[in-house]
Amino acid sequence: MGRSPGSLRAGCPERRNRLKRIAFLLGAVITVAAVVALPPRASGHPDEEASPIYGVTIPHGYRDWKLIAVKRLFFAGKGEQLRAQLGNDIAIRAFKEGTLPFPDGAVIAAIHWTEVTSQDNNKVLDVPFPGTQSFVIGSPVNVQFMVKDSKKYASTGGWGFADFKDGKPGDKALHQTCFPCHIPAKDRDYVFTRYAP
Amino acid sequence: MGRSPGSLRAGCPERRNRLKRIAFLLGAVITVAAVVALPPRASGHPDEEASPIYGVTIPHGYRDWKLIAVKRLFFAGKGEQLRAQLGNDIAIRAFKEGTLPFPDGAVIAAIHWTEVTSQDNNKVLDVPFPGTQSFVIGSPVNVQFMVKDSKKYASTGGWGFADFKDGKPGDKALHQTCFPCHIPAKDRDYVFTRYAP
Repeated sequence: MGRSPGSLRAGCPERRNRLKRIAFLLGAVITVAAVVALPPRASGHPDEEASPIYGVTIPHGYRDWKLIAVKRLFFAGKGEQLRAQLGNDIAIRAFKEGTLPFPDGAVIAAIHWTEVTSQDNNKVLDVPFPGTQSFVIGSPVNVQFMVKDSKKYASTGGWGFADFKDGKPGDKALHQTCFPCHIPAKDRDYVFTRYAP
Repeated sequence: MGRSPGSLRAGCPERRNRLKRIAFLLGAVITVAAVVALPPRASGHPDEEASPIYGVTIPHGYRDWKLIAVKRLFFAGKGEQLRAQLGNDIAIRAFKEGTLPFPDGAVIAAIHWTEVTSQDNNKVLDVPFPGTQSFVIGSPVNVQFMVKDSKKYASTGGWGFADFKDGKPGDKALHQTCFPCHIPAKDRDYVFTRYAP
């Protein structure tokens, strides 16, 4: 028994709706499959490179972390550097509470800049304090990170290391020097920096 | 026409309720009046001393503010100092966006420490970088604040100043030197410090 023309036209909107629903579901399934199939992303900037050996990427927002301390370095043959160590909340809490070892999830950032003389400051300071010299930040050199994960980084004291210059990680040879350099600080969970009062 | 005993007893709960409401309202009015009559509290720690001239107290939680920059000072006759400038959110946003003048509510903290040699660090750094010397924070010297309020501090470029040592503000003579010292930075809203990248 054939359909009457009237009933055929009446059936079309329903069929179109059904096809739309099928298309929508198909699209959703394909999207989910695509996301699931993506390789796992490292923490931080998913599309940025990670440090060799440790796989550490630049943590989001590290520049806005709280201050641990400040340091100066006279690098023989290279000049002066000004340095700041910043910590995420887990690291800062551990520093303040004297918690050792640092808990998993603690991250310490060490930002390094060149140091330059500040003529403006010197002119001002020289008036009340003759001979005083002021040195301020010049330009970025590199930024280093220590990430605590006692399982993942068990063979290096629980810490993963990273050294970035202009957003790019250093090479493997550089990263092979990180942990051995920190071994002398073993009694303080391999961390040299002390929290500044 | 007198009230019957029955009606008197019936009237008492209503009267008690009315009295309770009056007492409550009276108490509320007295409380509000007391609060309004209190002298205005300076920001920060209400019971701590404020800086002379400007009335600035130590802002709560300044040690956990975000980092603006790091500086080193060679103080003729006094030795080296390591310094960090931290900012509250209003100040940090202004630095990042290059906003001048700084908005009201911006506060900049400048923490000063002595600098000491780090033998531990030197031993470690000398291996890969012979002759390198590391200088770390020794002990606190003082902490200074600049508070932006363009109306309250109109006569000093919109800034209130404070210098604290061991939690105590310096004397009036010291605070009289703050603004004149900052005048050379007038084209940057009297702020010397630049945001470190």
